[in-house]
Amino acid sequence: MDEFDLIARIQSATEGLQPIAGSLAMPGDDCAVMQLAAGKELVVSSDLYIAGVHFPANLDGADIARHCLSGAISDLAAMGASPLAMTLAVSAHAASWIEALIPGCTDVIKDYRIALVGGDLSQGPESLSVTVIGQIAEKTALKRSDAEAGDDLWISGCLGEAAAGLRLLMAADEGGALPAKYRDLLIKRFTAPEARIDLGLALVGIASAAIDISDGLLADLGHLLKASKLGARLFPDAIPVSGALKVFADTYPAQTAMDFILQGGDDYELCFTAPAKWRNRIEETASRFDFLLSRIGTIEADPGLRWPDNFAAPAAGGYRHSFL
Amino acid sequence: MDEFDLIARIQSATEGLQPIAGSLAMPGDDCAVMQLAAGKELVVSSDLYIAGVHFPANLDGADIARHCLSGAISDLAAMGASPLAMTLAVSAHAASWIEALIPGCTDVIKDYRIALVGGDLSQGPESLSVTVIGQIAEKTALKRSDAEAGDDLWISGCLGEAAAGLRLLMAADEGGALPAKYRDLLIKRFTAPEARIDLGLALVGIASAAIDISDGLLADLGHLLKASKLGARLFPDAIPVSGALKVFADTYPAQTAMDFILQGGDDYELCFTAPAKWRNRIEETASRFDFLLSRIGTIEADPGLRWPDNFAAPAAGGYRHSFL
Repeated sequence: MDEFDLIARIQSATEGLQPIAGSLAMPGDDCAVMQLAAGKELVVSSDLYIAGVHFPANLDGADIARHCLSGAISDLAAMGASPLAMTLAVSAHAASWIEALIPGCTDVIKDYRIALVGGDLSQGPESLSVTVIGQIAEKTALKRSDAEAGDDLWISGCLGEAAAGLRLLMAADEGGALPAKYRDLLIKRFTAPEARIDLGLALVGIASAAIDISDGLLADLGHLLKASKLGARLFPDAIPVSGALKVFADTYPAQTAMDFILQGGDDYELCFTAPAKWRNRIEETASRFDFLLSRIGTIEADPGLRWPDNFAAPAAGGYRHSFL
Repeated sequence: MDEFDLIARIQSATEGLQPIAGSLAMPGDDCAVMQLAAGKELVVSSDLYIAGVHFPANLDGADIARHCLSGAISDLAAMGASPLAMTLAVSAHAASWIEALIPGCTDVIKDYRIALVGGDLSQGPESLSVTVIGQIAEKTALKRSDAEAGDDLWISGCLGEAAAGLRLLMAADEGGALPAKYRDLLIKRFTAPEARIDLGLALVGIASAAIDISDGLLADLGHLLKASKLGARLFPDAIPVSGALKVFADTYPAQTAMDFILQGGDDYELCFTAPAKWRNRIEETASRFDFLLSRIGTIEADPGLRWPDNFAAPAAGGYRHSFL
């Protein structure tokens, strides 16, 4: 199997699907050739995922592919961009490991209408490197650096679930008291995260800054605040705690649900800022989605994070992508 | 060090350099945002390079970066595209390994006027994954599939030198009889290959099909012929043999210079086809470059490779990227 075989197999499994935008040349040459719609800018990001660092080495191949590709596509969501194409470079010791990725790749291609246009395969330690390419109307990309003092601070969805799911994946004998439906839900948040593409598109023209939460809320909010040279005051009571995470956290007395929410990564929810005048519009937008949009704080001129006096804030360590 | 530190260090080392084309947003966000010139198509390719598979694990970092990035950019040359931007995902166990890549990265950025716009860093086995992005006027990309029977078959430069250089790198005690100037020249062909971007640009509108020679002439010509559903007759006497390779091959009695030329990879010269009417024009084009353009065969309708009866053709095995 070489990269052309892999691409051909994935394409035949997703036949008939047209990417939403752009006219794409088939791969099979030295490069893929694509057109970009008029007036659009190109949006590009690369992510590297290594077995034993970013995902457990024994994870099912389809889950590996869904986790890694959705995570990479999430960077497009954070910019407000539409997915266009991706390339996939995979190394593994056995062709069977690469073949096992295919069902997850086809799921992601169908879910996001993104075309797989190229890549590379090699003998080597198990890893995936994903480059995603999107497009966006000129000068409308959501950056990290454009938050303003007085803006509201928002997050999508319920955080901490993917980190809990990863914990369950890594210690199969733990969480025995957890009902199967919660266990499955939490694990699925790690193995099949949803990149918030539709939310990103809806936030163009509304949000002042955005980032996706891959390393934990504290870490990624920290990146946004640093890029914007601002601080934030947080409302812990406004941060949603999912039912599954609540029950899960009860089985881990050493860590609270809030620890997972603030420091757990891999949820791929969006964290964004917006002027207060858009508060109603954002709440209306939320009604279109099957996940929450929660106003969890306010942006302030003073750098740093501030909490209510009665809240035991964790140290802003963030999530480290290594469980070797 | 994270990917932003790496990119910032490389950018400060290449300050003042403007990429040739396009208006590029700085990275430092979830994605890089770029404009494409009007009437241009996007050209994209990803390549994966793993220590011990694609390059010797003990190779100098700057040489690793030059080898891998130039090799990736060569795919743009094979399509006739202009370099625009690249992303770089690196895994290594030590930050020092990544830092050692920087001088080679800056060399390549200067040589090809390509912008480093993003990437990712991770703990893990030493590897580089490079995605190159180029642009080309609509519908002018040089494909592998458009050769025609009766076309001339051409190669650029002298082949086999990079494979000889790799052999010298891997067996430092061999080649003792080889004068240092030849040794250095051959090694440099592996550690600092030149992507034939200017040649690719000159061939747009002239060549009917093109491919870069990364896996050896026989293997890559085979890809071109398969994509074009054609065969070729080769003129072995027209294939140039460099002085350095001649002297080198004398020290390796088991393999001839022609073995290295036909089966050695990593030269990143171009192999292309063109109608016979362009023969003079291609020879004029050659005079602008400091490397040869050699007409080494003719394309025929019958699939397969044909040689003169008196030529001992090697089995078309090609080059395997593995010396583990």
